[in-house]
Amino acid sequence: MNMLDPRNIKIAYIGGGSRGWAWKLMRDLARETDICGTVALYDIDRKAAQDNAAIGNYIAADHEGVSPWRYEAADTLEAALTGAHFIVISILPGTFEEMASDVHAPEAYGVYQSVGDTTGPGGYVRALRTIPMFETIACAVRDYAPEAWVINYTNPMAMCVGTLYRVFPGIKAFGCCHEVFGTQELLCRMTEEMLGVTDVTRGDIKVNVLGVNHFTWLDKASYKGVDLMPLYRQYAEKYVHSGSPTDDPEKRKTDVFSSGNQVKFDLFLRTGYIAAAGDRHLAEFCPADWYMKFPEMAEGWGFHLTPVSWRKNDLVKRLAQSRTYLEHRAPEGVMPLGETGEEGVKQIKAIMGMGDLVTNVNLPNVGQIPNLPLGTIVETNACFTSDSVRPVMAGPLPAEVLELSARPAQNQTDMVTAVLRRSHEEAFAVFSRDRLLGALSQEDKRALFDRMVAATKAYLPRDWDKTL
Amino acid sequence: MNMLDPRNIKIAYIGGGSRGWAWKLMRDLARETDICGTVALYDIDRKAAQDNAAIGNYIAADHEGVSPWRYEAADTLEAALTGAHFIVISILPGTFEEMASDVHAPEAYGVYQSVGDTTGPGGYVRALRTIPMFETIACAVRDYAPEAWVINYTNPMAMCVGTLYRVFPGIKAFGCCHEVFGTQELLCRMTEEMLGVTDVTRGDIKVNVLGVNHFTWLDKASYKGVDLMPLYRQYAEKYVHSGSPTDDPEKRKTDVFSSGNQVKFDLFLRTGYIAAAGDRHLAEFCPADWYMKFPEMAEGWGFHLTPVSWRKNDLVKRLAQSRTYLEHRAPEGVMPLGETGEEGVKQIKAIMGMGDLVTNVNLPNVGQIPNLPLGTIVETNACFTSDSVRPVMAGPLPAEVLELSARPAQNQTDMVTAVLRRSHEEAFAVFSRDRLLGALSQEDKRALFDRMVAATKAYLPRDWDKTL
Amino acid sequence: MNMLDPRNIKIAYIGGGSRGWAWKLMRDLARETDICGTVALYDIDRKAAQDNAAIGNYIAADHEGVSPWRYEAADTLEAALTGAHFIVISILPGTFEEMASDVHAPEAYGVYQSVGDTTGPGGYVRALRTIPMFETIACAVRDYAPEAWVINYTNPMAMCVGTLYRVFPGIKAFGCCHEVFGTQELLCRMTEEMLGVTDVTRGDIKVNVLGVNHFTWLDKASYKGVDLMPLYRQYAEKYVHSGSPTDDPEKRKTDVFSSGNQVKFDLFLRTGYIAAAGDRHLAEFCPADWYMKFPEMAEGWGFHLTPVSWRKNDLVKRLAQSRTYLEHRAPEGVMPLGETGEEGVKQIKAIMGMGDLVTNVNLPNVGQIPNLPLGTIVETNACFTSDSVRPVMAGPLPAEVLELSARPAQNQTDMVTAVLRRSHEEAFAVFSRDRLLGALSQEDKRALFDRMVAATKAYLPRDWDKTL
Amino acid sequence: MNMLDPRNIKIAYIGGGSRGWAWKLMRDLARETDICGTVALYDIDRKAAQDNAAIGNYIAADHEGVSPWRYEAADTLEAALTGAHFIVISILPGTFEEMASDVHAPEAYGVYQSVGDTTGPGGYVRALRTIPMFETIACAVRDYAPEAWVINYTNPMAMCVGTLYRVFPGIKAFGCCHEVFGTQELLCRMTEEMLGVTDVTRGDIKVNVLGVNHFTWLDKASYKGVDLMPLYRQYAEKYVHSGSPTDDPEKRKTDVFSSGNQVKFDLFLRTGYIAAAGDRHLAEFCPADWYMKFPEMAEGWGFHLTPVSWRKNDLVKRLAQSRTYLEHRAPEGVMPLGETGEEGVKQIKAIMGMGDLVTNVNLPNVGQIPNLPLGTIVETNACFTSDSVRPVMAGPLPAEVLELSARPAQNQTDMVTAVLRRSHEEAFAVFSRDRLLGALSQEDKRALFDRMVAATKAYLPRDWDKTL
Repeated sequence: MNMLDPRNIKIAYIGGGSRGWAWKLMRDLARETDICGTVALYDIDRKAAQDNAAIGNYIAADHEGVSPWRYEAADTLEAALTGAHFIVISILPGTFEEMASDVHAPEAYGVYQSVGDTTGPGGYVRALRTIPMFETIACAVRDYAPEAWVINYTNPMAMCVGTLYRVFPGIKAFGCCHEVFGTQELLCRMTEEMLGVTDVTRGDIKVNVLGVNHFTWLDKASYKGVDLMPLYRQYAEKYVHSGSPTDDPEKRKTDVFSSGNQVKFDLFLRTGYIAAAGDRHLAEFCPADWYMKFPEMAEGWGFHLTPVSWRKNDLVKRLAQSRTYLEHRAPEGVMPLGETGEEGVKQIKAIMGMGDLVTNVNLPNVGQIPNLPLGTIVETNACFTSDSVRPVMAGPLPAEVLELSARPAQNQTDMVTAVLRRSHEEAFAVFSRDRLLGALSQEDKRALFDRMVAATKAYLPRDWDKTL
Repeated sequence: MNMLDPRNIKIAYIGGGSRGWAWKLMRDLARETDICGTVALYDIDRKAAQDNAAIGNYIAADHEGVSPWRYEAADTLEAALTGAHFIVISILPGTFEEMASDVHAPEAYGVYQSVGDTTGPGGYVRALRTIPMFETIACAVRDYAPEAWVINYTNPMAMCVGTLYRVFPGIKAFGCCHEVFGTQELLCRMTEEMLGVTDVTRGDIKVNVLGVNHFTWLDKASYKGVDLMPLYRQYAEKYVHSGSPTDDPEKRKTDVFSSGNQVKFDLFLRTGYIAAAGDRHLAEFCPADWYMKFPEMAEGWGFHLTPVSWRKNDLVKRLAQSRTYLEHRAPEGVMPLGETGEEGVKQIKAIMGMGDLVTNVNLPNVGQIPNLPLGTIVETNACFTSDSVRPVMAGPLPAEVLELSARPAQNQTDMVTAVLRRSHEEAFAVFSRDRLLGALSQEDKRALFDRMVAATKAYLPRDWDKTL
Repeated sequence: MNMLDPRNIKIAYIGGGSRGWAWKLMRDLARETDICGTVALYDIDRKAAQDNAAIGNYIAADHEGVSPWRYEAADTLEAALTGAHFIVISILPGTFEEMASDVHAPEAYGVYQSVGDTTGPGGYVRALRTIPMFETIACAVRDYAPEAWVINYTNPMAMCVGTLYRVFPGIKAFGCCHEVFGTQELLCRMTEEMLGVTDVTRGDIKVNVLGVNHFTWLDKASYKGVDLMPLYRQYAEKYVHSGSPTDDPEKRKTDVFSSGNQVKFDLFLRTGYIAAAGDRHLAEFCPADWYMKFPEMAEGWGFHLTPVSWRKNDLVKRLAQSRTYLEHRAPEGVMPLGETGEEGVKQIKAIMGMGDLVTNVNLPNVGQIPNLPLGTIVETNACFTSDSVRPVMAGPLPAEVLELSARPAQNQTDMVTAVLRRSHEEAFAVFSRDRLLGALSQEDKRALFDRMVAATKAYLPRDWDKTL
Repeated sequence: MNMLDPRNIKIAYIGGGSRGWAWKLMRDLARETDICGTVALYDIDRKAAQDNAAIGNYIAADHEGVSPWRYEAADTLEAALTGAHFIVISILPGTFEEMASDVHAPEAYGVYQSVGDTTGPGGYVRALRTIPMFETIACAVRDYAPEAWVINYTNPMAMCVGTLYRVFPGIKAFGCCHEVFGTQELLCRMTEEMLGVTDVTRGDIKVNVLGVNHFTWLDKASYKGVDLMPLYRQYAEKYVHSGSPTDDPEKRKTDVFSSGNQVKFDLFLRTGYIAAAGDRHLAEFCPADWYMKFPEMAEGWGFHLTPVSWRKNDLVKRLAQSRTYLEHRAPEGVMPLGETGEEGVKQIKAIMGMGDLVTNVNLPNVGQIPNLPLGTIVETNACFTSDSVRPVMAGPLPAEVLELSARPAQNQTDMVTAVLRRSHEEAFAVFSRDRLLGALSQEDKRALFDRMVAATKAYLPRDWDKTL
């Protein structure tokens, strides 16, 4: 990386028509006046990218004193990536139609999923269409921007990052996820309640992070030198049945993302370690009969299954918001700035040499977790500094956590292999080993897989298993 | 570690009569007003510890607004360590009489050493008397302060830290050395010269550190996103013969610690990587005929062999300074405060949860350098946070560096084993594999070893090899 | 090892009063006419050792053409070990009174054990008294026979071998167990039935072995190039409910060691890999509600819980047999020679350079199973050749097996640490993580542990946790 | 692998027109009456393959009681590989014209090579044309015979085997080399001389093998339990100047392959370990000024530089022999049978389940040498059994050997990467780090590389670095 002019950097955004992450990035970039430049938005939905370019370009005009980033829609991946210093990937693989099949098709077999984008039958079938897209992206990075840093937000996180490294081993990529931040927030509230202190912030909670994305764990947590692990045990025992008082009880009933952290507490009591992701994600990695044998069981554990219909409705709202932004009439038509809680821009600055940072990201295992296979995509803390992201030695997964994590970690690695080889049978073998399907017969697993693959067929690569 | 009261911490200082590191620590502690407490000074020279306690206690009176630390001499290791939160070790193993033998005895065999405390015949014989002392210390930490953090400054660094971990595997210890800082300063000056910029500070130079103490390397260095490696090549080529313009030429002639970095430049040209320690230290790890076949050769490479007579003279000056402090008449009798350039107190604060820090330290290899054996004491960057020091994945030593480092790394590990076993023969086997002795016959190695061991005999453990 | 005179080797037998393994060894030695020498029998029951010496010395007289080994009782470990080339360890740690508590005390809490000597509450409490004995043995080997090869048969195998290596890292020790042989025999019978061939022998069944002792697995098995894994699936499906036809149904009812391999078959259907130990051993590593929630459940799975009363009765018979041998009246008083199925003597010969051998043994993990921690005592194939036993790279445990094995593997390592530190609390922490106790409250685990420790107190080391 | 009919196996031979290895294989196959089948000979020189088919088919007719293998020339790789159970690769990459450049072009720069096919400038440029050929072969194996076992004899061994695994990670391939056997033969002669025994055979010499091909080492060697290391030291000291008495002095003067093992002895005295390859190979891995600064220096060390003209002459003789065989007139026209000393057929039988075997082969490092990077192609002992070749844990390279081996090991890995990426610059970077070129300026290295690449251009892949 040559000496970067911090006023003239280029960010390529793949999935640049996004109405979630892309808007967050715009807001975070606007607030960082030390750096400026161009964001090239690339999206297979070209109109969405153009709309977002327009929305992005309004920001500097609408807000005083912000960093005047320029937004432009790029026609091709090549155009977006050429000259880029950073590449952000945040795509929806397929549409919510395919996702509806991922999430709900297994219900016919008594298998429920709370998210369906990471692991479980939904996560693995989503991987079938996502991995080939990331092959394309990895090749493009190799050809047009081999020195650029790549930040992925897309799920299934581990398999996306894994694909990037398998296809282009020289890539400088990492995956970001804010689920650990949420657990740190829970620890803030717990610390306030248990120690009688106030105004605890995420930065005060020091943690060691280890695991695979969305099934990440903390084996050490402290606040000003106080070991939080024994406190968390008390807290977990206190609230495992009723849910933590961190969310408004009314909100917990209606907000599909809300939970009382009861799954987290139960996992602590089972293992002695803090599971560090939302309960909806955690539950999908466990045997079905722990938390989700039937939908009411999830409700009993204080969390919700996210129906894809909710996502479709939410998209309608986002599209409306997009139109409002494009009409650009204050106040609703002006994007408000403010904390997003994301760290992407801080990471970019750290990589530019503008302030070191230690935070949790997803990277290939080079030994930071010695008892997961090398090459597994793992989530741990990493040091960000100039042109460099290096994992911190997180240490081995405790045995009680390893016995839960070994299988999904292996499955994710194996699914990348299977799809890169275009092997329907190998992909099925991984699918059939998923723990949520533990109660199904081999025949039912086969029938379910075939049905789910059929539903996502339009997004499979052309050379998908020719023996089919 | 319970919640620490930052106004009431206890530091035990082993070697507390020291007139070098101890005074530096006093000055750094005084400047840190966020923390305060007691420093228990333990020294086998009890009078020296008492003098230092008096000197330390003057500081708060002499300087306004500083942190009022209390200093006391401890009668026993047990008294010093009991209740300690931090333990600093900075001892002189034996006296300068033994060191005179370590450094100069090999000269009779045509073997010259520039320092003689880390590697080479001098370093290994020093290890014979130091390792047993560190066994005693490790046992005391285990028995009286198993949860305390231990910071070692004593040489031979790697063998000292190695002994602590072998004897008490649960110890929380690390070793600190400022040699890398010196190389970062050189990179500051280089950056200024080569890029035409000014006021570059050590914090601007981002590096990846890897190797064994005093033979540490940088495989990546940058300044504001600019890769410094190609610049360093030009700089090395420019100054390999004349020496860098970083030290006053007059100073270079007379100051025994001064150098023109020509060894560093030559090692870069040989390997392609930046050696990150003073030339005096680096030269001792290389074959004798590279830089020190005879004393004039060292001078030709722009560095000096440090005679132990210099150390003896220096001690006379320090003793005088100590008396002056004890007489406590301004201005000479008042210890001045000011930057020491050391990081020990910052590390202490980070471990107390008062600000994270990434810096280079010596720790057992748990995979941070995958191609050195696990358990080798290696120097890399590490993340300091609340009650936690975790190495950053530094990556493998490049082959060109590994071929120089493998042998001393192995020798250091093997010498700890040999001394813990009290085996004269195993110790000799390590000694005889040292590269500086490459030209000696087996008989000469044997004779030299026996002579050097005899000179240090008073400090060997009582149960030293009974077959002798 | 100097050039051995194969006619004059010395074997030390610790536990030399044994009436099981010792007699097997005598028979195997007698049949090996290439080697001869002395066996020094050491036992804390000196009379038993003397009796066995007498019995052993009759053999050469009673049988023509056998190797005339000399047997003698040794008064001390020192006497037994001094000059030994090989050391066999086969001891009963404590008496059957302590074992009765190990096995049956947990029943009051609804916890059943089929063996109780390897894992589970019984195995861990047995370890409390066994590990200190192995410390003593390891020190004696270090002091009196550091170059001798040590063969252990004692359970808990992994913790015994682990202790030997922790106390004397330079030891040349391995642990032998015939459970894998039994699984190979099952594969012989299966091959005959499924392929319609006859006279398949253990040597025809080629396997890759990996896991921890008594919870060992095969991830590859073949017969003359035929992959046996798919055949085994059919066989497992066929017999998982009824039991394999390999044992006489009448015998299965009454013989406490007999089983229909239903646990093995079920484990295959759960994981896809062949569990390679007796069902009694395998069941103890699994959650209690899989096979042993109550005694009838075990019977339903076709295996028996071994009551210690059976062992006591069996001992009575062995003592009677011993008396008969000592009376030395043919035919009952003459020990018959014949195949024992054990490999100890073949291993001894291989180490003497008299024929290479590949077989499964227990050794510290140096990477032969990359996803178990280094240093874990693991069972894999190893190459035996002159003065050398090196593990074969077995590869990683499959995820489905790792999720079952990670916890017991870690517990075994941690229990050795706990007992070497004499820490009651650390020992309890390991005990409480055992999977068989999964349904107990923390209070019940504590009460059970204290009760079981009290029952074995006479055999705990004198310096056992003084805080008690 | 299905159950193989041992009377009907298919071997594909790539390079089947070879007049060296192919004839040896024919002879070895003929002697193995337990197995029989077809050998498909594929060669880009189709005529040579046809000739060899004819020669091979004569054997069964000419010799009574031999195994009647059928030989046929295959038109395409696809035809050769389809249905193959085993694949042998023994090709000459390019012609002796290219090899003449590899070996002799560097002489203009004062760089001499004794073989020029493994390492050094010759080995690396040979790799440029060989790696692409092995890419083609790896793809063909993947597509036509993914379950077949692949045995490579081609040099540069490590880079050939490395390419096979990089291109088709699922391949079952290993590389065979008889150089270690030669060192075992030397140990036989040494044992006879030093111990006064007779008729020592290679099987009596038990060794641990570790290193990279042609720079392989023994850190343990014994004969009937006698440690041979101290004896070898005496032997090395005795003969390091005069050469061992194992070859007739007259032969040593004229036979280009003959040597007095002086390089081996010197390497032992430098490192304490036995280098286990011919002196011609060993010398090329060392700094040029150790053994080959000029041609006379090699002669002084008792070995010969092999001129390519010798190979050309030898080829003329082999072609004549081939014609003689084709004319098929006894006695010269009949291929004699007899010991070849090669193990390929024994390995084939072991993989077929017909007798286990432990021998040294080249495989990717999965931890058998823990201090070389994973994935490096290393040579150690391995266990051959049914459908399985697993490395034996060889342990770490001693530091004294690692410091010599780290660089070539890394270079070989990096050259495979460079050529797979078609990167002239990366290939040059590897070339320029070779130790034999240590005395050359960067400019001379560049000029030499370009000249050597130009000479082999006809065999570079079409898509070789387009920037050229």
